[in-house]
Amino acid sequence: MALHGGIDLGGTKIQAIVRDSDGGQVLGEARNPTPAEGGSRAVITALVQTLRQAAEQASIAVDSLQGVGVGSPGEVDAAAGTVGKAGNLPGFDEPVPVAATLSEQLGVVVTLGNDVDVATWAEFELGAGRDARSLLGVFWGTGVGGGLVLDGASWHGRGGAGEIGHMVVRRGGARCPCGRRGCMEAYAGRRAMESKARREVEKGAETVLFEIMRERGRDTLGSGVWARALERRDGLSKRLIDRAVKALGAGIASAINLLDLEVVVIGGGLGTRFGQPMAERIAEAMRPHLFNDERPPEVRVAALGDLGGAIGASLLCVPSEPSTNV
Amino acid sequence: MALHGGIDLGGTKIQAIVRDSDGGQVLGEARNPTPAEGGSRAVITALVQTLRQAAEQASIAVDSLQGVGVGSPGEVDAAAGTVGKAGNLPGFDEPVPVAATLSEQLGVVVTLGNDVDVATWAEFELGAGRDARSLLGVFWGTGVGGGLVLDGASWHGRGGAGEIGHMVVRRGGARCPCGRRGCMEAYAGRRAMESKARREVEKGAETVLFEIMRERGRDTLGSGVWARALERRDGLSKRLIDRAVKALGAGIASAINLLDLEVVVIGGGLGTRFGQPMAERIAEAMRPHLFNDERPPEVRVAALGDLGGAIGASLLCVPSEPSTNV
Repeated sequence: MALHGGIDLGGTKIQAIVRDSDGGQVLGEARNPTPAEGGSRAVITALVQTLRQAAEQASIAVDSLQGVGVGSPGEVDAAAGTVGKAGNLPGFDEPVPVAATLSEQLGVVVTLGNDVDVATWAEFELGAGRDARSLLGVFWGTGVGGGLVLDGASWHGRGGAGEIGHMVVRRGGARCPCGRRGCMEAYAGRRAMESKARREVEKGAETVLFEIMRERGRDTLGSGVWARALERRDGLSKRLIDRAVKALGAGIASAINLLDLEVVVIGGGLGTRFGQPMAERIAEAMRPHLFNDERPPEVRVAALGDLGGAIGASLLCVPSEPSTNV
Repeated sequence: MALHGGIDLGGTKIQAIVRDSDGGQVLGEARNPTPAEGGSRAVITALVQTLRQAAEQASIAVDSLQGVGVGSPGEVDAAAGTVGKAGNLPGFDEPVPVAATLSEQLGVVVTLGNDVDVATWAEFELGAGRDARSLLGVFWGTGVGGGLVLDGASWHGRGGAGEIGHMVVRRGGARCPCGRRGCMEAYAGRRAMESKARREVEKGAETVLFEIMRERGRDTLGSGVWARALERRDGLSKRLIDRAVKALGAGIASAINLLDLEVVVIGGGLGTRFGQPMAERIAEAMRPHLFNDERPPEVRVAALGDLGGAIGASLLCVPSEPSTNV
C-alpha cells in the first residue's frame, strides 16, 4: 500500500484524508473548523491535528505516510513551500513557510498546491472528468474559483490562471468582494449573495434565510441555509440563486467560447450541495451565450464532493503528480 | 530557397504572398477584392489569380512553390480540405472543396487553416509574440476574432476555440451580429459599430463618418473611415470607439483572468490601423478588470500588419507547421 495524506485548507474548515493511492480508497478522514484567531501558528497546529485524526481513523501512524499534500487558498509558492496573500486565513498576509513547519511537526514530506487546482486535478484524474482530456472546474462557494486541465495537463499560465470568478459578465455592474465591478463572483459568490440578501432585507424584503441561519446556529449563510430556503420556496433566495445561475451561465459560456472544452465540472460548497439538477440549470443558462451552440460541453457536478480538495491534495505527493505546463 | 505561397481569404479582400521560408522574406504580394457574386467558383478563381500575381511579382513560376497555404473564415476542415459555413463568402454555406480545386488549378499542394489561427501563429513565430511561449491574438475588424497559442502550441479545443468576440461583457446587453446579446463584438466589431452609428444618425446624431465614407467611394465604414473621423475629432466616432475599447478591455481582461498569458497581440483591420497607441488604450481599459493587476500582460500591436494572415497561411505548408494540441 502507498499511503498518502491530503489536506484541504479552507477559510472555514480544514478537511484531511488518508488515502491508499494504489487501491484508491480513502481510509480515514477528519474535519475541523479553521481557527479564526491565533494567527498562522494556530492554523498550522489545526492542520497537524486534523491530519492526525484522519490517520487515527485509518489506524495508521502518520510517519508511515509517504507524503502529505496541502491544497491552500492564496498565493501558493510550491517551490518555496509558502502560502501568502490568503485573506481568508489569519496571519497569512505575508508568506508563511507551511511546508517546512508542517513537515517538521509531522515527520513527513509536505507538498503544497493551489486549492482549486488540486480539486480540479482530482476531478480530472478520479472524478467527473475521468473520461475527458480537457476540462474546466468551477468551484461555486464563498467565491467562485476555476481550474483548467488542457490536453491532460494543469494549466496555470504565469501562475495566476483560473480566476473565472473575476471574468466580467456585466461591465459596470455589481461590486465584487474583490473591489472590481461586474465580475461573475459579484453575482454568484456566496459572500456577495449574502451581502445582497442583507441589503434587500434592509430595504424591506422578506426572507426565511436569516431565520434558517439562526436555527442552524450559524452567523453566515452557508450552502445548507440556501438549500433549505429554496426547499421552503423562499422568494428572495430563489431570485438571488436565479441571478447567480445566470451569471455563472454567461461566465462559463464565455470561457467555453474562448477554449471550446468538452467538460465543465461544477464543484464547491454550493455546487456540491445543489448537485446535478443545478449543473443542468447552469448548462441551460450557458446556452444563450454559447457560440458553438449545437455542441455544448457537458456540465457535470463534481463526483468527489466535499472530499475532492483533500483527495486532490493527496495526489500532489503521488509520483504521477499533476503535470504542468507553466 | 524554400518557396511557399500564402493566401488570406477574407470577406472583403484576398491577399496573397510568395515567401522564401528559409530567408524569411516576402518576395511578392498581391491583393484583390473578394468577388461578391459568382459563388464559390468565382472566389476560387480569384484565389488562383491573386496567387499568380504575387508569384509574377516575385518572378517565380507557381509550380516551383513547395506548397500553398490558405487561411479562411468559416468552418475549415483541414483534413478534408473544405470550407463551409462562411457567411461572408458567396456560395460557402455548404462545404466547398477548396484545397483540391485550388491544388488542381495551381499544380501545387494546398493546405487549409482557420484565418485567425494562422494569423495568430504568424505573430507567435515571426511577429509581436516572437519572445513569448503563450499569447492571445485579438483580431479587431468587421468582427472580433481570437487565437490562442498555449505553451508553444496552437489551441483549438474541439476545433471551435478562440471565439473571444462572443465572450459576454454585458449580460442582456447590446444585440450582436451573431444574434446573441452582450458579446464583446456587439460593442467592438466594426459591423456592429456601423449599425450603431446608422441608428444614432437616424435618431439625429451628427457625424462626419458617412461623409468620409462617400468621399472615399465606399459603402461601408472601413477602418480608414473610422481613423479619419477620429482625426477630425468627430464626437460620435469618439464615443463609439471609446465604447468599443471598454468592451475590448473587459473581454480581454476576462480571458487573461482565466488563462494568465504574458502577451496579447492586437491585430485586424482596426487594430492594425490604430497601432500601438490604441493597444495601450486597450491595456488601460483592461486594468480595472484584471485580477492579477500588479502583473498585467503586455499588449502589443500585431507586427506583421496586413500581411500577417497571408504569412501565417504560408507557414501552414512549411515543415515546422503549427503544432496542435486538439
